Amino acid sequence: MRKLYVIGIGAGNPDHLTLQAVKAMNEADVFFVLGKGKRTSELTDLRRTMLHAHKAGPYRLVEIPDPPRDRAPSHYGAAVQDWHARRADLLEQAFAQADGVGAILVWGDPSLYDSTLRIVDTVLARGGQRFDYTVVPGVTSVSALAAATRTVLHDVGEPVHVTTGRKLRAEGLRHSATVVMLDADCAFRDLPPDTHIRWAAYLGLPDETVVSGPLSEVGDHIIATRAALRARKGWIMDIYLLQKHSPE
Amino acid sequence: MRKLYVIGIGAGNPDHLTLQAVKAMNEADVFFVLGKGKRTSELTDLRRTMLHAHKAGPYRLVEIPDPPRDRAPSHYGAAVQDWHARRADLLEQAFAQADGVGAILVWGDPSLYDSTLRIVDTVLARGGQRFDYTVVPGVTSVSALAAATRTVLHDVGEPVHVTTGRKLRAEGLRHSATVVMLDADCAFRDLPPDTHIRWAAYLGLPDETVVSGPLSEVGDHIIATRAALRARKGWIMDIYLLQKHSPE
Repeated sequence: MRKLYVIGIGAGNPDHLTLQAVKAMNEADVFFVLGKGKRTSELTDLRRTMLHAHKAGPYRLVEIPDPPRDRAPSHYGAAVQDWHARRADLLEQAFAQADGVGAILVWGDPSLYDSTLRIVDTVLARGGQRFDYTVVPGVTSVSALAAATRTVLHDVGEPVHVTTGRKLRAEGLRHSATVVMLDADCAFRDLPPDTHIRWAAYLGLPDETVVSGPLSEVGDHIIATRAALRARKGWIMDIYLLQKHSPE
Repeated sequence: MRKLYVIGIGAGNPDHLTLQAVKAMNEADVFFVLGKGKRTSELTDLRRTMLHAHKAGPYRLVEIPDPPRDRAPSHYGAAVQDWHARRADLLEQAFAQADGVGAILVWGDPSLYDSTLRIVDTVLARGGQRFDYTVVPGVTSVSALAAATRTVLHDVGEPVHVTTGRKLRAEGLRHSATVVMLDADCAFRDLPPDTHIRWAAYLGLPDETVVSGPLSEVGDHIIATRAALRARKGWIMDIYLLQKHSPE
């Protein structure tokens, strides 16, 4: 393999693909798909649909199942690093068997809560595989959430804080505009009831669900909706924007 | 005008356009361009190039010059609000003269340090113009910077803080991964010298310039490069990522 593209493909809507992403897809000979499980299966089907729609000529799809992961580790950072190392082993093996141009399609954008670049860097640092690589930016789920709710993330001149459910629980709401990702446990439930939330699940997908309002009015509804959707589909991908003061 | 699209067109590279953006452009009859000056002129030319490449059929382009703005106001927030109100006046007049489907092409993504949605909301709140509107998300300059430097913004499970030069100067570097936009004065110059910076100007444009390293090694170089580029072109658009610890 002489070149690798890591391509952000946007947050669910197949039309989030950029022209640059389509061009890169059309340069690639082999696509590596990382992951497993119900969520991955549905998302892999969407990738196949995108390739079918936009990729000219033949290509190969190599699926690389995730190694098992400790979901309740005693040290979160170390567990993640170990898991990355085992994924790097598998990706390195797949690269070694490929030639031409490879591509990895990443949901959203590769720079935000995605491990692909770290894993590729790990493979490169080992020195066994050499290749050029290029990152193609994508539409983040943060931008997709803002677009779906027609909102600017922050007040005029104010910052935007993007964090995880884990951090929000540990630190509380410290910034007026806070976007929360990777929250499996509705960490917003302990926040002041006048906090305004814009929550979305399955953004851009047929099951897209959006709920907005003050936590006092919609917090419990979001918790129940999230549980029901997750039970029905077997997986959920959601994100929310918190603002300390309710917008006018 | 019965419908308005506010379309994120990505951060400089014409191929950052999404398929959704191209579709929305092709539904529109009239494009409103806000702004004036050298920067706007070059960026308007790029918009024209995008329309020429991707827009089928006839369309109108309505340029709406910005009203003058107090660049050193005693109250920043109030001055910005007043400026927004005067821009809303001009946009409302332009909407009143349009029919069919309108569109505004926004650099990057409309949710991040862009005033278009606030101005449109102001126009709608006045009640004189009624129309549907849809926001199409775009690739942010944050994602474009990360892609150009092949980096993940944050450490594993850590937050990303997106802020302005003004806020960075006032608050210092409080988060390990901080992205700074709207900084006319190199606010990074007062930070600890081992802070790692990834700085880019004119991302995605032919003049794209990227400098990365510890501030102790590249800080002065960035300050000098920025001044020289700005003097040569008459405008600059730049962004940087700060990380408290130098990456390995």
